[in-house]
Amino acid sequence: MTGPADVTRALSGFVSNARWEQLPETVRHEGKRSILNFITTALAGCREDAIEHALASLMMFSKGGQATLIGRTERVDALSAAFLNAASGNVFDFDDTHLRTVIHPTAPVAPALLALAELRPVSGRNLLLAFALGVEIECRLGNAISPEHYARGWHITSTCGTLGAAAACGKLLSLDTQRTIWAIGAAATQTGGLVECLGTPTKSLSVGNAARSGLWSALLAERGFRGPPAPIEGRQGYLSALAPSTIDWAALRDGLGETWELSKNTYKPYPGGIVVHPVIDAALALRQEPGFTLQSIERIVVRGHPLLAARADRPLVTTGREAQVSVQHSVAAALLFGEASLAQYTDACVRDPAVLALRAKIEVEQDETIDVAAATLHMRSKDGASRVVNITAARGSLARPLTDREIEDKLRALAALWCATHNIQPLIDAVWALDRADDASLLVRLVVPAET
Amino acid sequence: MTGPADVTRALSGFVSNARWEQLPETVRHEGKRSILNFITTALAGCREDAIEHALASLMMFSKGGQATLIGRTERVDALSAAFLNAASGNVFDFDDTHLRTVIHPTAPVAPALLALAELRPVSGRNLLLAFALGVEIECRLGNAISPEHYARGWHITSTCGTLGAAAACGKLLSLDTQRTIWAIGAAATQTGGLVECLGTPTKSLSVGNAARSGLWSALLAERGFRGPPAPIEGRQGYLSALAPSTIDWAALRDGLGETWELSKNTYKPYPGGIVVHPVIDAALALRQEPGFTLQSIERIVVRGHPLLAARADRPLVTTGREAQVSVQHSVAAALLFGEASLAQYTDACVRDPAVLALRAKIEVEQDETIDVAAATLHMRSKDGASRVVNITAARGSLARPLTDREIEDKLRALAALWCATHNIQPLIDAVWALDRADDASLLVRLVVPAET
Repeated sequence: MTGPADVTRALSGFVSNARWEQLPETVRHEGKRSILNFITTALAGCREDAIEHALASLMMFSKGGQATLIGRTERVDALSAAFLNAASGNVFDFDDTHLRTVIHPTAPVAPALLALAELRPVSGRNLLLAFALGVEIECRLGNAISPEHYARGWHITSTCGTLGAAAACGKLLSLDTQRTIWAIGAAATQTGGLVECLGTPTKSLSVGNAARSGLWSALLAERGFRGPPAPIEGRQGYLSALAPSTIDWAALRDGLGETWELSKNTYKPYPGGIVVHPVIDAALALRQEPGFTLQSIERIVVRGHPLLAARADRPLVTTGREAQVSVQHSVAAALLFGEASLAQYTDACVRDPAVLALRAKIEVEQDETIDVAAATLHMRSKDGASRVVNITAARGSLARPLTDREIEDKLRALAALWCATHNIQPLIDAVWALDRADDASLLVRLVVPAET
Repeated sequence: MTGPADVTRALSGFVSNARWEQLPETVRHEGKRSILNFITTALAGCREDAIEHALASLMMFSKGGQATLIGRTERVDALSAAFLNAASGNVFDFDDTHLRTVIHPTAPVAPALLALAELRPVSGRNLLLAFALGVEIECRLGNAISPEHYARGWHITSTCGTLGAAAACGKLLSLDTQRTIWAIGAAATQTGGLVECLGTPTKSLSVGNAARSGLWSALLAERGFRGPPAPIEGRQGYLSALAPSTIDWAALRDGLGETWELSKNTYKPYPGGIVVHPVIDAALALRQEPGFTLQSIERIVVRGHPLLAARADRPLVTTGREAQVSVQHSVAAALLFGEASLAQYTDACVRDPAVLALRAKIEVEQDETIDVAAATLHMRSKDGASRVVNITAARGSLARPLTDREIEDKLRALAALWCATHNIQPLIDAVWALDRADDASLLVRLVVPAET
């Protein structure tokens, strides 16, 4: 390990000294978009089995009453709320994506801040600033160690998110640089999370822990709980243990305050894995073509970046969660139902005989010349004709970002599934006005179901 | 990563099927020695700053009232009790050592079991069996990946202990093989811990988390919280992420039930790092030599295994925690005070001018021919004479284990420092009789101070 000897100090100093005025208006606005999208996916996920089980178990140990669970009536302690809201937001992988690292930036950071906002009154402005800083630390770490870190088995959202959440909560607690270093050290020694767990409820544990441990690390540092001086770059620290042999030190610390990783955040129109998105776009476009019929399909070949085949060439999935990273299921369901939302990624949909029959006709081919945000779909008809659909940039990618209105519509659709009678407009208004709010904790209070 | 495809299943099947009758009497007895030694060091550590801060913070979030903290009157939820008791037991590194891996085996496993024993009634016999199995999983994992895993920065007690604690708690919950696999998966994705944090309070976070996460993982698995089929050996699982390129697969799974890692456990007579122990023996022996005086010391050279220099050649330490891995401080304090107990590893002792003066005369030399449990001390006198003390096996090493009586005496000494008026004999009796106890939770109830 060779590199700048003061990386943790540089990052911590940046965080502790940053001011709202330094945050460009576009970044402030992206923060609101991220938080709106996060609450959306947390509403969608908050009754998923993994969350129900984790909540029921944590209730045995929690003080209760302290903090809000997005979309639910139960109230738990702030650490458990951070855990559960993070897990809810990420459980379907329908949350946001930092494309260079495939980190879901908001799930570890925002719920830690929102739980903290219920312990101490904080303004929306301070929360937005802390959020942008947390995402900055999280994604810079990811940039420095991608893609080998993930390839080796580290669930990068968790392993980078814990430190991001600690930095963010440290900022919200107004920690000085030394205490921010301690918070990052406490987070670094509490992080973990394995890619192997994707597709099972255990996936949510490391994501929840990232938010919980990040928040707790900052609270401990505030109390004077000391850590090492260089937890990130020290000889037996975070990078030595978790990083590949080659570290992009420049990505980690050059240009702090000049560029913002938050501005590179993207939001998913579909709950599938991000690599599958251009494929879904292609399937939906094919379905709109004049003369297209399901009956005419003989064979479909999807061509994409090698990462598409590596992650999502899965013809034989059996659960909704696995199906999210299956090209075969995604194309079949999109062609059959004309949409790709949570209803197309249930266990029942995966067992649907019509889906099974259609997905057997679909295969994946690698093409290194195709961008990861692009895909080509070739359909051969039973009559020998063929159709080709090219998608050069998926909906929701940086080149074709969702509009504010599309993010709102995603919330409206998922909020209606969560609770058909709940008026979600006050939340939308509150998020867009967050920089003028005196009390940031109002956000979560607007997405609690009425007591029955 | 190539290796047996069913490592997790083999280990989990072994744990779920094991019976008390298979556990040799010597291993049962070693379990009692380990637990007695653990409670001893937890009593010593339970008021250390790191514990006070963590407790004060966790009390904000804990349901309370559920489980006992060793040595304290507060009662917290079971997960927090597992965390805090583990941290107390290990905070001084005065707990036990599995020498091949330098894992402290008991700290992650026993407190998880003791907390669980306060949630559900369990017999002493079941607790001892679960404990031996947890240590087995923990230390076999360590054997498979040592020493590179630690060298890279992983705090091996934490990273292996989490899985050991999960396996142990799974056994105490009578989980079947499938649920034991889930528990190990939940633990694998929740583990972490960095060597960089040693010497600071953050060291205790990963050790506490190991016990907490291990317990919680087993409770989740009991509820049906699913995990991946091969969390240890899977393509992006625990070993891929945390292990060196070379894995000793045989150490991981050969001879299950025939050998027991618990039988290789050792207990420290001194709170120093394990490599420093023969050096302390040498210093104490030197002090007993006829004609020896402190005033006559011109220079002392300590020769030992290269690991001694790598870990403990630290002439300039400033805190009690750092001093535990300092040859210079340990020798100086042992020579000055004639003992090496917690009083010799306080911040005050490290600042003592007499200690500072003496430690400046001490240096460390490497000698590859010297065993890691051995050391040689050369003293040159001001009159030109020299003395040599050879220690071939440190007190407490496998070749020279502490007797049951010595372990009891360590408890008596540290319990007296903890509370001079507390009768500790009932605890000693209860541990030796643990295999005949109907309710294992009595152990921790015997080390709570009287309410004032």
